[in-house]
Amino acid sequence: MSTYAPIQRLGKDAAVPVAVYGARANRLARLRALGLPVPLAYAVSVPAVQGIAAGHMPDITSLLAKFGGRGIVSVRSSPIEREWGGPQTLLNVGLNDDIHAKLCRRLGEHDATLLYCRFVLEYSVHVARLDSESFDGIRNDGSPAALAAALAVYEAEMDEAFPQDPADQLGHVLRSMARAWEGTTARILRQARGAPTDAGLGLIVQRMALGLGGGESGAGFVQFVKPSTGEATIRGRYLSKSQGMEAKQPGRQADFITIDKRGRSLEEASPDALADLQKFAAIARLGCHDTLKFEFTIESGKTWLLDAAPADRSPRAAVRIAVDLAEDGAISRKTALLRVEPENLQQLLHPQVDPDAPAEIFARGLRASPGAACGRIVFSATAAQSSAAQDEPCILVRHETSPEDIRGMHSAKGVLTERGGMTSHAAVIARGLGLPCVVGASGITLNPKRKTMTTSDGRVFNEGDIITVDGTNGIAMVGEVAMMRPELDGAFATLMAWAAEFCDIGIRANADTPADARSARSFGVEGIGLCRTEHMFFQEDRLTVMREMIFADDADDRRAALDRLLPMQRSDFAELFEIMHGLPVCIRLFDPPLHEFLPHSREAMQELADAMALPVSQVIARAEGLREFNPMLGLRGVRLGLSVPEIYEMQARAIFEATVLASRNGKPVVPEIMIPLVSAAREVDLVKNHIDAVAAAVLNESGRKFTYRLGTMVETPRAALRAGDLALNSAFLSFGTNDLTQMTYGLSRDDAGRFMSTYVNQQVFPEDPFHTLDRDGVGELLHIASERARAARPDIVLSVCGEHGGDPESIAFCRSEGLDYVSCSPFRVPIARLAAAQDAVRGTNKATEDLVVK
Amino acid sequence: MSTYAPIQRLGKDAAVPVAVYGARANRLARLRALGLPVPLAYAVSVPAVQGIAAGHMPDITSLLAKFGGRGIVSVRSSPIEREWGGPQTLLNVGLNDDIHAKLCRRLGEHDATLLYCRFVLEYSVHVARLDSESFDGIRNDGSPAALAAALAVYEAEMDEAFPQDPADQLGHVLRSMARAWEGTTARILRQARGAPTDAGLGLIVQRMALGLGGGESGAGFVQFVKPSTGEATIRGRYLSKSQGMEAKQPGRQADFITIDKRGRSLEEASPDALADLQKFAAIARLGCHDTLKFEFTIESGKTWLLDAAPADRSPRAAVRIAVDLAEDGAISRKTALLRVEPENLQQLLHPQVDPDAPAEIFARGLRASPGAACGRIVFSATAAQSSAAQDEPCILVRHETSPEDIRGMHSAKGVLTERGGMTSHAAVIARGLGLPCVVGASGITLNPKRKTMTTSDGRVFNEGDIITVDGTNGIAMVGEVAMMRPELDGAFATLMAWAAEFCDIGIRANADTPADARSARSFGVEGIGLCRTEHMFFQEDRLTVMREMIFADDADDRRAALDRLLPMQRSDFAELFEIMHGLPVCIRLFDPPLHEFLPHSREAMQELADAMALPVSQVIARAEGLREFNPMLGLRGVRLGLSVPEIYEMQARAIFEATVLASRNGKPVVPEIMIPLVSAAREVDLVKNHIDAVAAAVLNESGRKFTYRLGTMVETPRAALRAGDLALNSAFLSFGTNDLTQMTYGLSRDDAGRFMSTYVNQQVFPEDPFHTLDRDGVGELLHIASERARAARPDIVLSVCGEHGGDPESIAFCRSEGLDYVSCSPFRVPIARLAAAQDAVRGTNKATEDLVVK
Repeated sequence: MSTYAPIQRLGKDAAVPVAVYGARANRLARLRALGLPVPLAYAVSVPAVQGIAAGHMPDITSLLAKFGGRGIVSVRSSPIEREWGGPQTLLNVGLNDDIHAKLCRRLGEHDATLLYCRFVLEYSVHVARLDSESFDGIRNDGSPAALAAALAVYEAEMDEAFPQDPADQLGHVLRSMARAWEGTTARILRQARGAPTDAGLGLIVQRMALGLGGGESGAGFVQFVKPSTGEATIRGRYLSKSQGMEAKQPGRQADFITIDKRGRSLEEASPDALADLQKFAAIARLGCHDTLKFEFTIESGKTWLLDAAPADRSPRAAVRIAVDLAEDGAISRKTALLRVEPENLQQLLHPQVDPDAPAEIFARGLRASPGAACGRIVFSATAAQSSAAQDEPCILVRHETSPEDIRGMHSAKGVLTERGGMTSHAAVIARGLGLPCVVGASGITLNPKRKTMTTSDGRVFNEGDIITVDGTNGIAMVGEVAMMRPELDGAFATLMAWAAEFCDIGIRANADTPADARSARSFGVEGIGLCRTEHMFFQEDRLTVMREMIFADDADDRRAALDRLLPMQRSDFAELFEIMHGLPVCIRLFDPPLHEFLPHSREAMQELADAMALPVSQVIARAEGLREFNPMLGLRGVRLGLSVPEIYEMQARAIFEATVLASRNGKPVVPEIMIPLVSAAREVDLVKNHIDAVAAAVLNESGRKFTYRLGTMVETPRAALRAGDLALNSAFLSFGTNDLTQMTYGLSRDDAGRFMSTYVNQQVFPEDPFHTLDRDGVGELLHIASERARAARPDIVLSVCGEHGGDPESIAFCRSEGLDYVSCSPFRVPIARLAAAQDAVRGTNKATEDLVVK
Repeated sequence: MSTYAPIQRLGKDAAVPVAVYGARANRLARLRALGLPVPLAYAVSVPAVQGIAAGHMPDITSLLAKFGGRGIVSVRSSPIEREWGGPQTLLNVGLNDDIHAKLCRRLGEHDATLLYCRFVLEYSVHVARLDSESFDGIRNDGSPAALAAALAVYEAEMDEAFPQDPADQLGHVLRSMARAWEGTTARILRQARGAPTDAGLGLIVQRMALGLGGGESGAGFVQFVKPSTGEATIRGRYLSKSQGMEAKQPGRQADFITIDKRGRSLEEASPDALADLQKFAAIARLGCHDTLKFEFTIESGKTWLLDAAPADRSPRAAVRIAVDLAEDGAISRKTALLRVEPENLQQLLHPQVDPDAPAEIFARGLRASPGAACGRIVFSATAAQSSAAQDEPCILVRHETSPEDIRGMHSAKGVLTERGGMTSHAAVIARGLGLPCVVGASGITLNPKRKTMTTSDGRVFNEGDIITVDGTNGIAMVGEVAMMRPELDGAFATLMAWAAEFCDIGIRANADTPADARSARSFGVEGIGLCRTEHMFFQEDRLTVMREMIFADDADDRRAALDRLLPMQRSDFAELFEIMHGLPVCIRLFDPPLHEFLPHSREAMQELADAMALPVSQVIARAEGLREFNPMLGLRGVRLGLSVPEIYEMQARAIFEATVLASRNGKPVVPEIMIPLVSAAREVDLVKNHIDAVAAAVLNESGRKFTYRLGTMVETPRAALRAGDLALNSAFLSFGTNDLTQMTYGLSRDDAGRFMSTYVNQQVFPEDPFHTLDRDGVGELLHIASERARAARPDIVLSVCGEHGGDPESIAFCRSEGLDYVSCSPFRVPIARLAAAQDAVRGTNKATEDLVVK
């Protein structure tokens, strides 16, 4: 940095790197270089500003001399990243009695005095740091009395007259801004926005364009795209005879930019000015490779661009803008991909309430998690699960949620809670799940026992009533309100096509149901990476048979129950195969512990006992007998598969029979079967023997040949370490990074909520390892496993399923490990694909990043 | 093996390796080489026997010719390991009409006919494999009629006359024995005793010594140590005019060996024979480096040793015999150490019921786990835990136990169940814990609700009544029955001293209480490797304060409750420091989740609510709020320590204040403080900051200097992988292999019982990984962690605490990894020390193993 001047003129032929002078200085330099009418400006470098804060003032007099002695300038902050904020812009620096007198002549006394008085007030409060209350009695009406009063207060408080030397003023302004940047509040605020502890600030000193005076004069702001959609349109305001952002101030009757029936417009006042702005914007768009928003001033008919920044844009607009820029040749496709934050796609993918639809709001609360959903009210997690099992959308309504509700939240379409804040359990979890959620809803009272929700005006909702929850706006509405379906074609589709072009890792979806599978196909996945079969057993009719199996006395009885589940499973799989149309479908064999299928409450056990004509004591005893201290580490997965082999045999048969069926109707299907919770190679060997036998039997019965691929889910640290052994009988390994993270950390995800935020805040964990894959621990196990598996079987297919498969940072890690594919929930597929494409683009073309206008 | 003769004469100058000819052949060869009167014998090698089974008979005629044509021989099995068993010995092979006639002349017709008839019967059943029922009508009374009848049945069944050619007979005998070895039953039996699938069998053909005839003739068996204790004494029986082991047959009035008031004795009948046996035994003891038992025959006044094997010995006797042999110079001390199975020491260490004490037995059951214990009856695991918390020994009495009872079993001194077999949950777990246990006790009926146990004769026991459980004998007795304290001095002490000499890895004990610590010191440990502090909070008075802390509203209230626990903890630690007298004491900070301290049943919650003057709903809500899905992976250990820092602060203060106190009274104490459940280095850093601050405060208040060592427990796979980071702020790492195994496998020990036996039987796991450390998975993590920790901090102290620390195979692994010490429960300290010494001895002196007589 030392080779850069402490004070640098902005313009053509001047190197104004962002890292030295900040983003704004760089941007203004570009605009000047493009020949746009940006008033003369000089940047003070980050090291120079640090020097100023430490007491080393550069030569201010010669700096002011560069502006030709007229001496009125503005000072703006130029942090390295725009998001970090910075001290407030100060206008009219250099105004003193002398210049005031001149301005009186030029602008008239009222306007000149208004300006001077405003400057005195701002300088007093923001630079001299006087208490603003000291000036409370003064109303700046442009009168000499108001000015005199302001100057008098200044003198009384400071024990000296208001500074008359412009250099003196500017020196104080620079020092004040440099020091404000170092202040505790500013530091905390910018660190909250991701700034490093040594975040640097540059400053810009710019000739004032007054916005006052003869001819059309005034100031405003404008951008040429619609922030919500990114369509080309003109948005902004203009205020005649004003400066800076006065047009934005409430109470000021600012004009529209274009002709508008609601009021006056710049277009009417000065069509030339508008034409200039449009011309300038088009030049800037191509030259700066982005659509900008501008702060502009018209001084006696001449239009000046004082400041510029990337135009405001919603996530949806960001997609459109990036695609339009690329299609207009302003940026490359690679750069377009980098312009969209993958995580933000989520807002495009979720439905939103149609703002024009009629709706009866019955509760308002916090906007805990965006998106909208409607469904039947359920008051318990269990009810949510059984509702989901019947494919009946539901909204979980609770006083507040707790870890026990997590599975219910997974099953619900939306969440509404009576209590809780933005960091309550419900809010945190819902955001994690991408589930619309309103918390702390005022005006409702729940009675979960009676299963009612009562509003403050006495309206009573019962379980099963339909409501709509709008997490984007923090409201809950009666009945089903019209939604805007997410718009997944147009620019989005184009961007996704480009992402697919550069994405060099496979993307599959986790899909358990036909609906999931269809949704996955609509996002163009390369297959299903994880089909969890257990959800299939929670549907009412199947649950009963499942329970009969659990209560069976011996293998024969168990098999009889399973025989009744077989046709249902077969049609489940056949349907998935048909939807996926020849794309690979990876089916995980039954995984959960059996006790998940038994009721928990005494009442429900009594019901079950009645239904099965068993003494309730037997039901209780069975439930007790199956109860586990740590179900995650208990009798489930392959352990259950080997202890009760009939289950896997039934599932294998269902898969193979469905394979035969689907292959008859369409492309040949090669099912992938995955064994869960393996910790020793012999588990794979034994299951393989069972499944091979079933395959042989089905082949024999059907007379049709088919093949299948057997793989292992790597979820235990031991499986990762022994991946070389596992690979011998596994065509593929899929890392179940949810469980692998839980076991590597010794940390139950369901129970971690109680301390995870403390841990992340205290930086014990840099991030929640369930959101972003822990490279240092879990990542090392993945690395070891991949190496060993490939050494044992070079053609082995390696993948990650589980929620990390949809997380951009984790996907980058998977790419670096050379995994074949990631699998994530269908709605994260676009996010995953874009993230992978970005990672690939960054790897091949570092330079493209520079094209991002900051 | 091909260089060894298929048939080898036993004796001096003949190489008869165990691996080729079997253990018995090797032993007899040694005895003959020592010049002892063992009849001429030839060994058939293992390959030759395999050949015989496959139909390749060696030249039998020339083999028989080596015996000088007299032709009567015995055939004995000689498996490579004695424990594998083998076909029954066959005597008098070669007997035919011709020799019968000669024997009639020599022994008289009755004796000769008795012998021949017996041979015909045995040959028919064991060699010709005729149905023994065919001979049911024949009573071998030495009459010609009986003989004729036997020969007639043979001829009728076999359709040929009884073979008269001795070579023919011998050939059939050899083939029959060779094939019997290959039979399924024999194979399963020996594999159950640990034989490999290709276990080899040798055979021995030996000249018969008849034990009949003129002068003193007969046969018997003898050994010169008492089997129960190993004291020098003579035990055996002798039967005049008999063969083989007839002296052992019930109903035969065999003589004692030495003069005995209960009957006749060999000492009286033939003092010379006894003197011979004593002389032979002494020679054999030195020459074979072990005390043997003998099968002997006196033939017309001459004493022959037909067979020998290591003398019978209990675990206690094995210790005495090994020490005596070494002290007599028959073996080295190293060899003496190898003579005792470490696991068997357990039987020396546990009290046994005094067989002479009066006792009233009220129930008999299965001998599920050895040792005896007495205590008050408790009918629930919870009652057992609270009884243990009050240092009140208890016996857990249950219908049967289930995983929920495990903690109760940990707390009980003994277990008695109404139901269950040798592989029931109670039996398996009790053996694992070294807990006396009787299962399937007949004659008792429990009513756990009323808390009574009723015997079949109507006697009623209530909770709190004292009983004694004798797992060694499978009985339960009324009241406290006199015990034999384990004898831990004498030979045991000597052996332990030798073990300490060769043991090159530190042995510490896991000790939570003063009683544990004293017990540990009595076994000469090098310190306490794991003091679990949570048990200290279960005592009645402390539990109340603990619960007040749990219900505290804020940190101040929590601290107030903890302030009341502080003096109790301080005196706990001070007492441990005093008992350990300057030896290191490693204290693990509070580890369990808080909900373990709250009651579970509705009634107990009501009680607690009353006691704390809280609404019961609040108690329930708190318990609900603390409930976890997977408590092992939840808010416990360092996570709790960082979430509620007051707990660790109180404990650190208690430790440091106790350090100051104890250092005043005795040797300076350097406490070791260990952080549980770490998964990230920053957890250690943060706890270190807290504890350093407390240390500084205590130093300041007391004005006394002290130091402490902070270490980390490696229990999560991630901690193992990140051991290099952890080492930076850890003076030591201790591998908590129980939890590490659970997390590496994703397997809860409490829940694994349901399928562990299936898994071990199907060889999914070669052994229960909670008993023997899994080298391939957990072991690799240990290895990685050790390497990384040492690289980061070469002087770091590494150890294993947890039950693997007391398992011989696991200890061998720890030695191979160069760990500094293992820590195990006090009663396993001798086992650990002996196992470590054996492993060291084996490593330095492979040859010593050959000295073990098989």
